[in-house]
Amino acid sequence: MHYIEDLQPGMTDSFAKTITEADILMFCAISGDNNPVHVDAEFAKTTMFGGRIAHGMLSAALISSVLGNRLPGPGTIYLNQSLKFKAPVRPGDTVTAKVTIKEVLVEKKRVVLDTVCSVAGKPVIEGEATVMYAVSRPPA
Amino acid sequence: MHYIEDLQPGMTDSFAKTITEADILMFCAISGDNNPVHVDAEFAKTTMFGGRIAHGMLSAALISSVLGNRLPGPGTIYLNQSLKFKAPVRPGDTVTAKVTIKEVLVEKKRVVLDTVCSVAGKPVIEGEATVMYAVSRPPA
Amino acid sequence: MHYIEDLQPGMTDSFAKTITEADILMFCAISGDNNPVHVDAEFAKTTMFGGRIAHGMLSAALISSVLGNRLPGPGTIYLNQSLKFKAPVRPGDTVTAKVTIKEVLVEKKRVVLDTVCSVAGKPVIEGEATVMYAVSRPPA
Amino acid sequence: MHYIEDLQPGMTDSFAKTITEADILMFCAISGDNNPVHVDAEFAKTTMFGGRIAHGMLSAALISSVLGNRLPGPGTIYLNQSLKFKAPVRPGDTVTAKVTIKEVLVEKKRVVLDTVCSVAGKPVIEGEATVMYAVSRPPA
Repeated sequence: MHYIEDLQPGMTDSFAKTITEADILMFCAISGDNNPVHVDAEFAKTTMFGGRIAHGMLSAALISSVLGNRLPGPGTIYLNQSLKFKAPVRPGDTVTAKVTIKEVLVEKKRVVLDTVCSVAGKPVIEGEATVMYAVSRPPA
Repeated sequence: MHYIEDLQPGMTDSFAKTITEADILMFCAISGDNNPVHVDAEFAKTTMFGGRIAHGMLSAALISSVLGNRLPGPGTIYLNQSLKFKAPVRPGDTVTAKVTIKEVLVEKKRVVLDTVCSVAGKPVIEGEATVMYAVSRPPA
Repeated sequence: MHYIEDLQPGMTDSFAKTITEADILMFCAISGDNNPVHVDAEFAKTTMFGGRIAHGMLSAALISSVLGNRLPGPGTIYLNQSLKFKAPVRPGDTVTAKVTIKEVLVEKKRVVLDTVCSVAGKPVIEGEATVMYAVSRPPA
Repeated sequence: MHYIEDLQPGMTDSFAKTITEADILMFCAISGDNNPVHVDAEFAKTTMFGGRIAHGMLSAALISSVLGNRLPGPGTIYLNQSLKFKAPVRPGDTVTAKVTIKEVLVEKKRVVLDTVCSVAGKPVIEGEATVMYAVSRPPA
């Protein structure tokens, strides 16, 4: 549990998850995104990817998890997120979402974080998040 | 089905979906995000939202759906997405994700789109997407 | 459909289910348990299990199914369950949950059962259940 | 992140989650338990509960979440769990699973914890867990 007063630039945390067939199916269900590159293995073989890839926003969802569960942690409210999709994620890949604090604005209850998703050490998504985090140290 | 040569600034399409309890539960599963504002009704009542809200990235996932299924359509590859979360989405809200073409770069196979998610006409997410779209009109 | 008056020690029934990626993902959703040994294949490889394993309580849930659907059957109310986790269950394993009546207390409407989950004949969970079962033979 | 050497009797942590219709449906899916008291509102009205209740093992699954994510935390392996179901949980109830360390056996890498699930402060499940936790403080 973090207080915003204790957050410092450079603090970092991460969450890793293997993206399975089931994750892709569920993401189709909740997003309605049935782009054949995600669901049609025969079509996907004919593309530049040579096979099915996971939805970019599925990997991006892991960023939400680190922010909301770990750093800053429970109570975090999302304000902004930029996402640059750099490389595909395939079923079976383990994606690590890592966030690193860049700036803390205690008065405005804002935290800016660098956000990177990677597979085997190679970035697949880069971007930046701004969140509201109002968990303040109680007065002594 | 669109050819990139036919895409024009101002073209628009949308996808709407009611965000149910089941969507929120599934998003917890694939993201790992169990932030109490999403899963704990009693905690959520004590927050500025007065009750549980859906994950911001869950609504954002609908943008992926319009891009990949409708405009530009199947074959779309995500390059960039910016997201500005403006207002909460609650279980039962119907989110409409609407994309509008801002710029088409036929040579580079790039399309830039304005992306808005709204509930009852009120924007909940604003942003911009850049996608690669290589579906070209076959030579005559 | 059983009447409690007909239940006898030694009566047995079972339910078998293959534990898929999708089951593990769903269990993450409803439990909130994203322990990396369940969701992160790279981490799991470094553990004593050599790969991802299913949540122990996911296999245990199958016991609930035999009790509530088969023996004693619909109307069963769970009172107690003990669980001893003996061996891991991996994605793709078929778990058979088997219950065997040990004791029937007709007056108190209680049934005590031995409960075993196994994979390929090898026990993965052992334990005992006590249930309330009030489905009584109607008077002649 | 905890080292087993730092764990002490009395340390406690918890996880709370609102049990929705979607959770009950998913638990039916993964357990196969379609006991009418969970899925048939008309039947459930005629029982002592006066309406549908959630599966007992669904609430018990939240214990798994606290153990695996918080205390002891990631890396926890389940060895034993006893469960005493004290009161029903209804759709919409918020269940808090709380674990409290009773005993730490550093040599054997075992931790024994008291486990309670409650709704609005009232216990619905009581029991005890024994886990293996091998995360040891690195030598100085």
